[in-house]
Amino acid sequence: MSSPDEPTLKAKIAAQFGTPCMVIDMDRVEANITAAQARCDAAGVANRPHIKTHKSPLLAQMQLNAGARGITCQKLGEAEVMAAAGITDILLATNLIGAARSGRLSALQRQLPLKACADNPVTLREYATAAQAADRPLDVLIECDTGQERAGVASPAEALTLAAQIKADPWLNFEGLLFYPPLSGWPATQVFFDRLHQGLAELGLQPNIVSTGGTPNFANLGQLRGATEHRAGTCIFNDRMMIAAGMASLDDCALHVYTTVVSRGGARRGILDAGSKTLTSDTGGLDGFGHILEYPQARIHKFAEEHGFLDLDACTQTGMPAVGDVVRVLPNHVCVVVNMVDELVMVRGGEIEGVLPVAARGRLV
Amino acid sequence: MSSPDEPTLKAKIAAQFGTPCMVIDMDRVEANITAAQARCDAAGVANRPHIKTHKSPLLAQMQLNAGARGITCQKLGEAEVMAAAGITDILLATNLIGAARSGRLSALQRQLPLKACADNPVTLREYATAAQAADRPLDVLIECDTGQERAGVASPAEALTLAAQIKADPWLNFEGLLFYPPLSGWPATQVFFDRLHQGLAELGLQPNIVSTGGTPNFANLGQLRGATEHRAGTCIFNDRMMIAAGMASLDDCALHVYTTVVSRGGARRGILDAGSKTLTSDTGGLDGFGHILEYPQARIHKFAEEHGFLDLDACTQTGMPAVGDVVRVLPNHVCVVVNMVDELVMVRGGEIEGVLPVAARGRLV
Repeated sequence: MSSPDEPTLKAKIAAQFGTPCMVIDMDRVEANITAAQARCDAAGVANRPHIKTHKSPLLAQMQLNAGARGITCQKLGEAEVMAAAGITDILLATNLIGAARSGRLSALQRQLPLKACADNPVTLREYATAAQAADRPLDVLIECDTGQERAGVASPAEALTLAAQIKADPWLNFEGLLFYPPLSGWPATQVFFDRLHQGLAELGLQPNIVSTGGTPNFANLGQLRGATEHRAGTCIFNDRMMIAAGMASLDDCALHVYTTVVSRGGARRGILDAGSKTLTSDTGGLDGFGHILEYPQARIHKFAEEHGFLDLDACTQTGMPAVGDVVRVLPNHVCVVVNMVDELVMVRGGEIEGVLPVAARGRLV
Repeated sequence: MSSPDEPTLKAKIAAQFGTPCMVIDMDRVEANITAAQARCDAAGVANRPHIKTHKSPLLAQMQLNAGARGITCQKLGEAEVMAAAGITDILLATNLIGAARSGRLSALQRQLPLKACADNPVTLREYATAAQAADRPLDVLIECDTGQERAGVASPAEALTLAAQIKADPWLNFEGLLFYPPLSGWPATQVFFDRLHQGLAELGLQPNIVSTGGTPNFANLGQLRGATEHRAGTCIFNDRMMIAAGMASLDDCALHVYTTVVSRGGARRGILDAGSKTLTSDTGGLDGFGHILEYPQARIHKFAEEHGFLDLDACTQTGMPAVGDVVRVLPNHVCVVVNMVDELVMVRGGEIEGVLPVAARGRLV
């Protein structure tokens, strides 16, 4: 959603905030929220967006208003911020051991019933202790790995062992199953799920939630019989990785880093005032550390902490950035980039609309 | 400075703060501050530590108390935080265009006389405008590149053109020269400096400051005739990169990320609760994303945003981390890691001493 008055907007951003500055187009954000909900609706699963991408209660509330059932958090600190803003249906999609030991899991569970995930018995014991301290049983999903080799039990048998441990513990409720299927792994996930579902039935357990995840997996939505909801994060903003995955176009991307060319350093080089402390060293498997809208042939090939170094060798045909130019960088991986700042600047129709706190940024625990 | 009661300290950290948690050993921090000052003293140059590593006014004040002449900042926002804490001798080691256009350079220059760097005429014009708005001429250093291919003019002739522009502008004072010589580039830097120095004399200009930079360049300190001061950042904490550069031992490293093994995910794998949003994807050119003190053979080979994935293939001889273990990770590049958090936990002699705000974190402009 590049608007014809982009040069004016750049000058306004630089004058009001300086550079680098992270800017989100609210028309695009709203369109992306609507599109994600429509995908879930069409597939007949509930939408439980992952707020790790934006870390903003305001955007989470917009997602809920658009029809989301609840939200997904990756850190207890994120859930604390969302709960403080009045959001009540929160799934924590990870093993929370550090947060349990600090007493914070128990403190939040006392306020409202959380859903948390586990893939091992140690985590379950920490959960039971925290739930008992909160005087409220904890709803637990078993995380299952069907090929990503991230977290998750590797077999239905292991999942059933954990399910039995949950069933035997008065402070734990069996709530369901969490999957993050590989893009091509949905048939294998179906096999895993069907076997596990049968075993659970033999234990007298029924999953209330069967969750799948990932923006790229929107392409597979509806292909797991038994799935009840989906959690996707990146789709609210999109980024260069989502374009590479075929899940977004340049126009679908809502966040850009406005940055100034502060030096040229030779005929074929340039330097941005955004480095690894702004754009991060996360390549997302792509070449270069971002896409410059105004100079698509310029390559951000290296970082210092506060500088992005441009290789301009391919730029002859399209012009060269000059010192003083403000350019817009589409980041490779927007989730880690948002996490670098306390605020995003909201724009709409070429005008600055306000400042949005990244309220849960830096919540490590 | 691993202490015999480390297991107790780990349990205390987890109970009080949860994990992941960034912890600095204050005995080691103080020893590193003293050592850096001693290196500068021995070489006969002033010490102007770069605060980008710690972003803490308290630590900056400790460096000044130990004998530093002033401090170096990379962002105006860092200088704002340091100035608010009462620090007055501040060098900004970069072209500040975004900060100038936002009015913030002018606002701070009105409060106290800053030193800023430039390597091009556009930056100098922005500086003159900001200085005039502040009603106080700005002290400017010309940044010179002698082989790093980062910022800086590439020849004495270019530097002299900028010097003439500074001399002709009533709102700019020529203050000196900023170098970041490559490790093996000090002889070439001497040639550059000598030619430039002569040209400056012909313009009637004399540098008050001739600054060199970088912790690894401590090894070369004293080798540039005419140098007046040195700016080093990383040495206050040190990290895996500084060990690789031969500038520190494991015992010289003051900061560790305390993190919990939250899952194993198979016999040869493990998962930490610290991922790219904690340890960052900055490899620093090293293999793996950090060094685990307790399991040096474990390799942090991949990240999710909140998970570090361990390859435990080489661990047979030294034991395997178990789910629930708290381990200490020495980061590859400590400057970008500190920048992820609002607070560091200070310890001394195995006891928690307090919490240190990373006051200038996230100051992008």
